[in-house]
Amino acid sequence: MPNLRIVVVNTVIHDEDDESLHAQAERARVLRIGLLEAGYDIIASLPPDMYLPERIAQLQPDMIIVDAESDARDVLEHVVIATRDERRPIVMFTEDQDPDSMQAAVNAGVSAYVVAGLQSERIKPVLQVALAQFKREQKLLDELSDTKSKLAERKVIERAKGLLMQRQGFSEDQAYQKLRSMAMSKNLKLSEVAQRILDVEDLLG
Amino acid sequence: MPNLRIVVVNTVIHDEDDESLHAQAERARVLRIGLLEAGYDIIASLPPDMYLPERIAQLQPDMIIVDAESDARDVLEHVVIATRDERRPIVMFTEDQDPDSMQAAVNAGVSAYVVAGLQSERIKPVLQVALAQFKREQKLLDELSDTKSKLAERKVIERAKGLLMQRQGFSEDQAYQKLRSMAMSKNLKLSEVAQRILDVEDLLG
Repeated sequence: MPNLRIVVVNTVIHDEDDESLHAQAERARVLRIGLLEAGYDIIASLPPDMYLPERIAQLQPDMIIVDAESDARDVLEHVVIATRDERRPIVMFTEDQDPDSMQAAVNAGVSAYVVAGLQSERIKPVLQVALAQFKREQKLLDELSDTKSKLAERKVIERAKGLLMQRQGFSEDQAYQKLRSMAMSKNLKLSEVAQRILDVEDLLG
Repeated sequence: MPNLRIVVVNTVIHDEDDESLHAQAERARVLRIGLLEAGYDIIASLPPDMYLPERIAQLQPDMIIVDAESDARDVLEHVVIATRDERRPIVMFTEDQDPDSMQAAVNAGVSAYVVAGLQSERIKPVLQVALAQFKREQKLLDELSDTKSKLAERKVIERAKGLLMQRQGFSEDQAYQKLRSMAMSKNLKLSEVAQRILDVEDLLG
């Protein structure tokens, strides 16, 4: 496997509090060492701002690491929006121990949520497990979306068939054959033809 | 939330190697401290043997912790079999860093896989994240299984309808009404009546 290409999204600390600044710098340092020791490439370190979606789309990283303190929820929100169209593994390193924050993060699709105690030698296994979690969940989500569309298509086809039987006095078989020949001549899926028939019916009332 | 009731499944070390024995004892000690400090109840510590499914069924723990060394795969296999009928969150603490082992564990339904570096104060957040992961995945799995059965039921109903139309000369609507009245009189689901019709057809050839 080639090196993982990683984008780190960092908290930006605005206030003048030396201690926060120091803690953030130290966390960033440990994270950087761990990633480099594990042989990963940090291709960018980005702030959680409005440009994030565009920059992630350009960089196409294999994984996004969120390194956040108490503002973990805000930062994560930016990252979730930035990966909505194309899901990517997200790992959070944070100080936020609130169980609600954890469940919210996991529900938003975070593959690993690591609280405190960050040591550089622990980073690689955490990232590997996160990748495994991501793959597993992506497979489940794909299967779910596939099954849902099959169900939806079947409903649409049935409704269109019923409409043809009712309006044109077709038998079920005739209605089905009609849908099929329309699909073939237009080079469309059966469900697409069925949807068009229903759309026209809606328009005509 | 009441205390989590936890079952720990431990590796049994058979050889006389003092170092393994010592490492295992130390890991068990750190784990126990972390769980107690976090306010969890360790209701049993069990070996990965043939009695495990029965004992887990009796104890009904909220979570199972696998504490394993190089034999993590074997131990996990026992735990997966023991929770096949009733899924429970499984957390693994292990020394096994092989990415294949990690993916296998995650695919088997492990909610958290923690490699090395076990510190008692890190245990609580790890378990909380694992619970969140488990809930999220259970929701996905339930939704998937629900959508799959809807699709399967719809297929069965359609096939039975087609059969009634073909054999009895019913219109589609008549076939549907027939299924409905049979379902009502037998107090069965539409799909169950449909399945019986198909079963009888299979029997009669």
